[in-house]
Amino acid sequence: MVDNIGLVFLSEVLGTGMLILLGCGVVANVALTKNKGFGGGFLMVTFGWAFAVFAGVTVAYNSGAHLNPAVTLGLVASGATEFGLGVPVNFLSVLVYLAGEFLGAFLGAVVCWLAYKQHYDEEPEPANKLGTFSTGPAIRSYGWNLVTEIIGTFVLVFVVIAFGGGRQGESGGLGALGALPVALLVLVIGVSLGGPTGYAINPARDLSPRIAHFILPIKGKGSSDWAYSWVPVVGPVIGGLLAGWASLVWLPIMA
Amino acid sequence: MVDNIGLVFLSEVLGTGMLILLGCGVVANVALTKNKGFGGGFLMVTFGWAFAVFAGVTVAYNSGAHLNPAVTLGLVASGATEFGLGVPVNFLSVLVYLAGEFLGAFLGAVVCWLAYKQHYDEEPEPANKLGTFSTGPAIRSYGWNLVTEIIGTFVLVFVVIAFGGGRQGESGGLGALGALPVALLVLVIGVSLGGPTGYAINPARDLSPRIAHFILPIKGKGSSDWAYSWVPVVGPVIGGLLAGWASLVWLPIMA
Amino acid sequence: MVDNIGLVFLSEVLGTGMLILLGCGVVANVALTKNKGFGGGFLMVTFGWAFAVFAGVTVAYNSGAHLNPAVTLGLVASGATEFGLGVPVNFLSVLVYLAGEFLGAFLGAVVCWLAYKQHYDEEPEPANKLGTFSTGPAIRSYGWNLVTEIIGTFVLVFVVIAFGGGRQGESGGLGALGALPVALLVLVIGVSLGGPTGYAINPARDLSPRIAHFILPIKGKGSSDWAYSWVPVVGPVIGGLLAGWASLVWLPIMA
Amino acid sequence: MVDNIGLVFLSEVLGTGMLILLGCGVVANVALTKNKGFGGGFLMVTFGWAFAVFAGVTVAYNSGAHLNPAVTLGLVASGATEFGLGVPVNFLSVLVYLAGEFLGAFLGAVVCWLAYKQHYDEEPEPANKLGTFSTGPAIRSYGWNLVTEIIGTFVLVFVVIAFGGGRQGESGGLGALGALPVALLVLVIGVSLGGPTGYAINPARDLSPRIAHFILPIKGKGSSDWAYSWVPVVGPVIGGLLAGWASLVWLPIMA
Repeated sequence: MVDNIGLVFLSEVLGTGMLILLGCGVVANVALTKNKGFGGGFLMVTFGWAFAVFAGVTVAYNSGAHLNPAVTLGLVASGATEFGLGVPVNFLSVLVYLAGEFLGAFLGAVVCWLAYKQHYDEEPEPANKLGTFSTGPAIRSYGWNLVTEIIGTFVLVFVVIAFGGGRQGESGGLGALGALPVALLVLVIGVSLGGPTGYAINPARDLSPRIAHFILPIKGKGSSDWAYSWVPVVGPVIGGLLAGWASLVWLPIMA
Repeated sequence: MVDNIGLVFLSEVLGTGMLILLGCGVVANVALTKNKGFGGGFLMVTFGWAFAVFAGVTVAYNSGAHLNPAVTLGLVASGATEFGLGVPVNFLSVLVYLAGEFLGAFLGAVVCWLAYKQHYDEEPEPANKLGTFSTGPAIRSYGWNLVTEIIGTFVLVFVVIAFGGGRQGESGGLGALGALPVALLVLVIGVSLGGPTGYAINPARDLSPRIAHFILPIKGKGSSDWAYSWVPVVGPVIGGLLAGWASLVWLPIMA
Repeated sequence: MVDNIGLVFLSEVLGTGMLILLGCGVVANVALTKNKGFGGGFLMVTFGWAFAVFAGVTVAYNSGAHLNPAVTLGLVASGATEFGLGVPVNFLSVLVYLAGEFLGAFLGAVVCWLAYKQHYDEEPEPANKLGTFSTGPAIRSYGWNLVTEIIGTFVLVFVVIAFGGGRQGESGGLGALGALPVALLVLVIGVSLGGPTGYAINPARDLSPRIAHFILPIKGKGSSDWAYSWVPVVGPVIGGLLAGWASLVWLPIMA
Repeated sequence: MVDNIGLVFLSEVLGTGMLILLGCGVVANVALTKNKGFGGGFLMVTFGWAFAVFAGVTVAYNSGAHLNPAVTLGLVASGATEFGLGVPVNFLSVLVYLAGEFLGAFLGAVVCWLAYKQHYDEEPEPANKLGTFSTGPAIRSYGWNLVTEIIGTFVLVFVVIAFGGGRQGESGGLGALGALPVALLVLVIGVSLGGPTGYAINPARDLSPRIAHFILPIKGKGSSDWAYSWVPVVGPVIGGLLAGWASLVWLPIMA
């Protein structure tokens, strides 16, 4: 139980930082030259992000482990009265969650860069470096890219709400495996809906590392692709809100 | 508890839609040009379908989450008196389950097409497009393809009944992981029996997306291969019924 | 509870049959020409065998789901007084378990052949066909192959006994996930110790399919490699017995 | 409950031995010529190490299953008063844990060598042989390699403490799946932070097999690369201590 809003902030910073360190890490491993996991394939990337969520949710359990503004906003839209364990839903708490998520994601990206420092330095292709921080579209088409991000985030937030607010009660009943359901969900969203845009499905996951890419003194880096940066922010926000509203209708009739 | 047959219908529509969105999605990711998961391999496809089942079963838990006419009919054959949570087995309820499954699968395929719209448009090979909707045989031989689908579906339905009606009691005791056993089962059916026919093991999974392929204005699409379309319907129905009857004999003597 | 030794027999036949159908199936998918999973890689094979165990153990839960003579004999060596749920350990019951395991494995291999019939017919290389039934050494050296099989089976049987007889109590407490621990164990034995001999680690898994290969009218089949056939029988028996005796010493001092 | 410090020693020897047998085993399978898993890829390696931890933790449950000096020292730093089940934290017990871990890792490496004996003999490249025993850097740079090992081990030890000492209570409540959370954690550390140094994240995992490589009469072996050997010892010790101290601050404010 965290009844201090400052601790909620710290918890979301830590959890989102862990998520981004491990999530950006797997892309770095697969994409940057000379790594032992170089060329490890898309399935390996999806395992990395899935269990990055597992680790991040585990350490941020006390704040409900949103780690994602789309989840926070989706919960608001769903009519939730409490975030996680005992934190009331109000304007201030929403701001605190969002701030923690964006800051944590920034810090996680910085630590990931440190862990892979030599490989960033030796990587010749600037686009590969940006790809370890932020997502980019396989076929650039802002409208359709937005559609893909909306669908992916809808699945994420709708099923997350179904885990906790529907039949399953507190997934905390699973003990140290409490973060496994959402990890498996993120796995399938990755393999099944990640093809066109790399499944940001989380504004903090994409924007904060992009800012880190922009700020950090990365050797030989290129553009931070700001033109695309709004898609993985706006799409997930829309998808999360739609999922929250859908839950608002769906869960009561199914209860 | 869902005591309204209309809600059962909606629940099966939603769950089967989720299943097909994510299941067809992983094939689209692997098979359609320029995707980030392009060429990701058969193991990735089986992970996608397995955890598509995980997500679909999770959201349709209140209707028992059949998501598959072979499961519905297999349960009837097994002598079940109740579907899922409190829904009686009778002619009407069977029709409602089947209708929900076929409609949900159609809608899921439509949403999948939207998520991958640009990649469908740029894919040059019509057969790859159909392959993201429906299954097709590796070696065309209707009789043997039927045998393979019967065996795969028998395994699915027999083990699903064993999960719930045998020793394990309600897998709902697993909380938010309640859908994991069937997901792992679908994983192994895919890797182990999916080679010859792509493991439809579900009439709705195959026929409804095929209808979607036929109807949708997909750029440069080819034949919907109606000649094969009966195999992944008839095979799973036979396999499901055989599994139900086998359970009818097996479970009582093992109880 | 199964108090009829005939039902124990049937349960082991069914469970071992399911194991071998799915286990040999994944090898057929990866190794036989034109399959959708052709060339899917060793990791896919290990996932297939791991969750083949998951399915087989699930359906044979009532007889304790040995599915493997090395497990049966290891349990005897460990001083167990009961097999599974209420079956006493005696000469007759051991014979019944072994008979069920060998017969089930034979039947599973036959059904696998039917599921992949067309692919067996079109496969040009006889060695690939045998490889879907039985294991063979990467480097033929009976002594060292035996060592590898002994080590792999020791790990299997020792950890299986630790699951149930050590701290965890009845893994049945996991409900429909009760078979997951042993599945994950078989996964790691495969990836980590399966390189030299293909990890038979089960006399029935290897010998009965080899007999099936010898008897069945498989088009263009070659030798059944009887010269090697004793290694994956004798190795697992020795490994299982050693693990049972080790448990007999280890578990009491750790209790 | 193990109240005899000698049994704690044996338990850590057994568990760490199991970990290293299976962990080094998967590298041998992937890296040494003619193995069935040869070239199986980095994802397969990470699955091997992850479920090697699963097996090792399962058999060493009674001593708390540290299997890693960085975990032992991190627990000390975190202010723990008890190791595992009823073993007090004091100078003697720390020494016993460390001794058991280093001896177990040595023995596990020896057994792995026996399991893959023929493949070591036929492997032409000495560096591949060493790689199955100990880790080495992708880009040699002791300072940055140390940073990577510190970050990886910090994640391991911090999250392990969060599993047990934070919300989840005893993960033993998961029964035979009690070792699954840490296995999944090791999976993600591997795929996400294993690129630059091969994620030793455990001084015993690296140093003891290196000593085994140095001592064993391995045909055609090369250097044991002692110049690098301090990095995967010092890095994990620093990372483990930092994680313990961080937990000391973090867990009380989050309680």
